[in-house]
Amino acid sequence: MTGAPLPLIDPVELTRDLIRRPSVTPADAGAMDTLQRVLTDLGFTCRRMAFEGPSGTGSDARIENLYARRGTASPNLCFAGHTDVVPTGNTEAWSSAPFEAEVRDGLLYGRGAVDMKGGIAAWVAAVSEVLAAAEPDGSLSFLITGDEEGPALHGTKRVVEALMAEGEIIDACVVGEPSSQHQLGDMIKIGRRGSLNTWITVHGKQGHVAYPARAANPAPVLVRLLAALDAWVIDEGYEAFQPSNLEITTIDIGNGATNVIPSEARARLNIRFNPAQSGDGLMAELNRLAGQAQADSGLQITLEHLCSGEAFLTPHGPFVTAVQDAVEAGTGIRPEASTTGGTSDARFLRAMCPVLELGLVGQTMHQIDERVPVAELQALTGVYRRVIESVLVRN
Amino acid sequence: MTGAPLPLIDPVELTRDLIRRPSVTPADAGAMDTLQRVLTDLGFTCRRMAFEGPSGTGSDARIENLYARRGTASPNLCFAGHTDVVPTGNTEAWSSAPFEAEVRDGLLYGRGAVDMKGGIAAWVAAVSEVLAAAEPDGSLSFLITGDEEGPALHGTKRVVEALMAEGEIIDACVVGEPSSQHQLGDMIKIGRRGSLNTWITVHGKQGHVAYPARAANPAPVLVRLLAALDAWVIDEGYEAFQPSNLEITTIDIGNGATNVIPSEARARLNIRFNPAQSGDGLMAELNRLAGQAQADSGLQITLEHLCSGEAFLTPHGPFVTAVQDAVEAGTGIRPEASTTGGTSDARFLRAMCPVLELGLVGQTMHQIDERVPVAELQALTGVYRRVIESVLVRN
Repeated sequence: MTGAPLPLIDPVELTRDLIRRPSVTPADAGAMDTLQRVLTDLGFTCRRMAFEGPSGTGSDARIENLYARRGTASPNLCFAGHTDVVPTGNTEAWSSAPFEAEVRDGLLYGRGAVDMKGGIAAWVAAVSEVLAAAEPDGSLSFLITGDEEGPALHGTKRVVEALMAEGEIIDACVVGEPSSQHQLGDMIKIGRRGSLNTWITVHGKQGHVAYPARAANPAPVLVRLLAALDAWVIDEGYEAFQPSNLEITTIDIGNGATNVIPSEARARLNIRFNPAQSGDGLMAELNRLAGQAQADSGLQITLEHLCSGEAFLTPHGPFVTAVQDAVEAGTGIRPEASTTGGTSDARFLRAMCPVLELGLVGQTMHQIDERVPVAELQALTGVYRRVIESVLVRN
Repeated sequence: MTGAPLPLIDPVELTRDLIRRPSVTPADAGAMDTLQRVLTDLGFTCRRMAFEGPSGTGSDARIENLYARRGTASPNLCFAGHTDVVPTGNTEAWSSAPFEAEVRDGLLYGRGAVDMKGGIAAWVAAVSEVLAAAEPDGSLSFLITGDEEGPALHGTKRVVEALMAEGEIIDACVVGEPSSQHQLGDMIKIGRRGSLNTWITVHGKQGHVAYPARAANPAPVLVRLLAALDAWVIDEGYEAFQPSNLEITTIDIGNGATNVIPSEARARLNIRFNPAQSGDGLMAELNRLAGQAQADSGLQITLEHLCSGEAFLTPHGPFVTAVQDAVEAGTGIRPEASTTGGTSDARFLRAMCPVLELGLVGQTMHQIDERVPVAELQALTGVYRRVIESVLVRN
């Protein structure tokens, strides 16, 4: 680092620069370059990590990722996020063009304003403020992907694998997803439930309804198994988590003939589970229950499982407390440490370090006229600055 | 009637004449004319009754029916049957053309040989033999339709309605369907189960699987209702009938998204029921059980019912005994009086009189190379002659 003064970044202007790059997954459209230039100016060493291969969506898109680090000392506080955005929907329905980044009446409009170009810009601006005041006691880093809104196969998951293989250490990570519910800072996410999909097939024997003894109807066997699964109390909850929950998401036989007993009956379950469970443990129990139903009925039952993420919980400790204190100091609200909602890239980052999510109010994300109050972007910058200081700047 | 001698009809030749008319439902192809000419020669007064209108299959075909009666005295013994046949399937697969009526090695091949042009011809031949010996004490009649293998909307059902409206009396009826299982005469059918189809829809509320409290999943409600219906013991049987039986014939949700709770779940049941039940009684009980499930779950449940036939049983009495005696005298086998199998036009005729089914061995019906042994056609003619004599000819 030279003696030249580092720039102070305006979070609103950087958000607007990023919105103007229409980076709808898997396109990058220059968004990563824009971010990289700013980080380089702030003294970060930037590594582009691009991955490609079967995407799970039929296309083999090349995905841009960025890992940027400033300093080599411990601890290494990382900010994680994504520059890609969801599609705009009908652009005619927007009150201003979704990639124009117009500010009107104190609101910045644009796809990604909330989810989550605004969050990235606020952290960058917070970093520039911290650096203007003092050199921190540790390292700052960014782990930014262009594949969070898509299949997420070539994004954070692969960057984390590569960094761990190299022995890179991250000590704590803030994911800038819009975690706030109604007011900035009212909620941080300190864990997420895991998700398991299971496909059940009961194999019977087709026949005429007038001669049931010559057939074997798979439907009642499936119905009894599903009724038992629906009644299964998986657990009563776990720390901050709700009880694990099973939903029957579809049942399909597709028999058009009123006088025919069908040959096969299929159903699919989804289980959202807390850290008291594991994907493997749930699969074993489902296999056991299906095996019992198979033994009772004499009909073959096959299961296919796909666990898209294990549950995790960042333990209450110095990191969570420091973030809660910083949010309270910046907003006057002590954030609820929640574990609700869908999955996020935090499920991959947890392999490296304690991880939590802290960001803007998510109300307009993924909607027409996605927008963020300019004042909220500035307030988030202040909150993020306090988080960085509480972790990295010794008093 | 004049003094001119009545012709003696050869059952094999008449079967061949009828097979040569390719009367695949709804086509008649001259089959009814062929039969009418022979009956007129035997002294029958023939009435053609044609009906048309929505067919339930998208076409508005005109259906030919025939009611022929000889004599005005009581009792009136009726033979019921159909001249229409099912499609041939791949004609290349037949060992001789399906409408050529070839006789090879003592077997007569052709579509309708068994189901049931052979049965019609045997009864006509039996009548000619009876008339050659003596004038019977009563009337003989034929009720023949061209719409039994199709939707059966403009066939026997409408002829029966018209005859009853006129006050026509039929005292007993033999339906010439192929009732025999393995040997001619081993089984007559003296009743049939009724059939009820019910469509069940559970109306829920769609939502994201991660937020089940904001949705209302219809699948578990349907599953519990179906499990209860499957466990329902409707009855333990009725006289010669098996217990009434419920089958789940399909369940369909059709939700492709693994993370979505579906809005609606549908299923369909079929109940085959004995005369201890009625369509109305079963519908009422299904409505009651669904109403209970609705009250328990708070989700709306709608049912649609379609009863395509009530159960019936021809009481054991002089008619059934006379037919069993005649069959035993003709074949050496005392026929089992059964109530198994699907529906037939007997379900309409039962409104007028006691009805039973007696005919050829059904093994090759509806198949490629449908065929009947010439000897079996001749033997059936003898059995039918004994039936007519036992009912109409006083000793």
